[in-house]
Amino acid sequence: MGSARSDRISPLAVKRLSLYLRCLEELAQQDQTTVSSRQLAKALGLTDAQVRKDLAYFGQFGRPGVGYAVQDTVTRLRVIFGTQKDWEVAVVGVGSIGRALLGFKGFGQRGFRLAAAFDKDPAKIGRKIGGVLVQSAGELAATVRKKRIRLTVLAVPAQAAQEVAEALCRAGVKGILNFAPVRLNVPDDVAVVPVDLGSLLQQLSYFVTAAQAGNQTHPGVRRDLT
Amino acid sequence: MGSARSDRISPLAVKRLSLYLRCLEELAQQDQTTVSSRQLAKALGLTDAQVRKDLAYFGQFGRPGVGYAVQDTVTRLRVIFGTQKDWEVAVVGVGSIGRALLGFKGFGQRGFRLAAAFDKDPAKIGRKIGGVLVQSAGELAATVRKKRIRLTVLAVPAQAAQEVAEALCRAGVKGILNFAPVRLNVPDDVAVVPVDLGSLLQQLSYFVTAAQAGNQTHPGVRRDLT
Repeated sequence: MGSARSDRISPLAVKRLSLYLRCLEELAQQDQTTVSSRQLAKALGLTDAQVRKDLAYFGQFGRPGVGYAVQDTVTRLRVIFGTQKDWEVAVVGVGSIGRALLGFKGFGQRGFRLAAAFDKDPAKIGRKIGGVLVQSAGELAATVRKKRIRLTVLAVPAQAAQEVAEALCRAGVKGILNFAPVRLNVPDDVAVVPVDLGSLLQQLSYFVTAAQAGNQTHPGVRRDLT
Repeated sequence: MGSARSDRISPLAVKRLSLYLRCLEELAQQDQTTVSSRQLAKALGLTDAQVRKDLAYFGQFGRPGVGYAVQDTVTRLRVIFGTQKDWEVAVVGVGSIGRALLGFKGFGQRGFRLAAAFDKDPAKIGRKIGGVLVQSAGELAATVRKKRIRLTVLAVPAQAAQEVAEALCRAGVKGILNFAPVRLNVPDDVAVVPVDLGSLLQQLSYFVTAAQAGNQTHPGVRRDLT
């Protein structure tokens, strides 16, 4: 939402594709060579039909009685996600969330390298966090251009987010993972993926409420609402 | 994924419902009384038909030429999400991510109150972070039972996650927001929402790759893949 990319393909569809990729990578590690749409569907809580439709959309077709070739589908999905090469990522805003992300080891495994960090607090500038030097906000544009950084994690306070996002876009950034609890207005060629921690807890409370009520509070919600 | 709840309703469908709720709450704040499926669809990058289908599933029907009653739909969705009342939430694992979450102000607005925190590091136990006392892992079960905590944020290292999750489930926890990069095995009546930061960056790299390639790398992906 807030991204013009979303009128080409739904962010939810992209999320499903990323879940297929993760699941298939795990199967490849376990040396499984083929997988059925049913197995993928079961692992991800989707219908078989949804899995077949999603994979068919980008040209992967399972063979009846055999399924999908695991490694081939992984390779194809990595090309689609652009993660067959490494991406340099900047963290903008080194508060508690920015600091936590700089210390997070899981990005490297997916082909994302934290290559720069920015803050406007003089007490933070010049320090290294998670091996990354914190630079001043004034160095942002030059560094993003020099290192050809296209992806950023935005973890500044809500009131600063729009202005910083505009500066990032002017410097050539094309994708923003947005932890600030505001909707960003960005140019058509820039994608925004919002991370809304309150919304994630809300999804949990949905499941717990539904279980407590024996699903009676929303009798219309059915399994096929995927 | 990994949650038995997912065979009743897809986590992606729940995510869409949470996006409708957020969008409708914003409209209510702006004193808008009705909204069309088209307006909701446009804001969220979905098709009109998907919005109508989702809302109809739990008994909300728009009136032709008028649309949906904003406040009525917000009220209905809050009941479904259980957020008409407050939830007490525990943070388990006070490393960099746990600490960042304890300092995050956005939970309270959604009806989630951080009520307890646990760690096994003696240097952290007894300290207050974001106003919440860090207790020892040994106090977890008794505190969760006493405070009737049903939702937790799991932010322990990957290798400890399964064991801690099992202890939480034994103490009566019914929902786990899982920041640990592992799939949890939990009883059928416990829901897990995984937060995979690497996967979120991957979703961004998808959009950027698609834009750079002019959508040519995946000619089959179309807008109606919602």
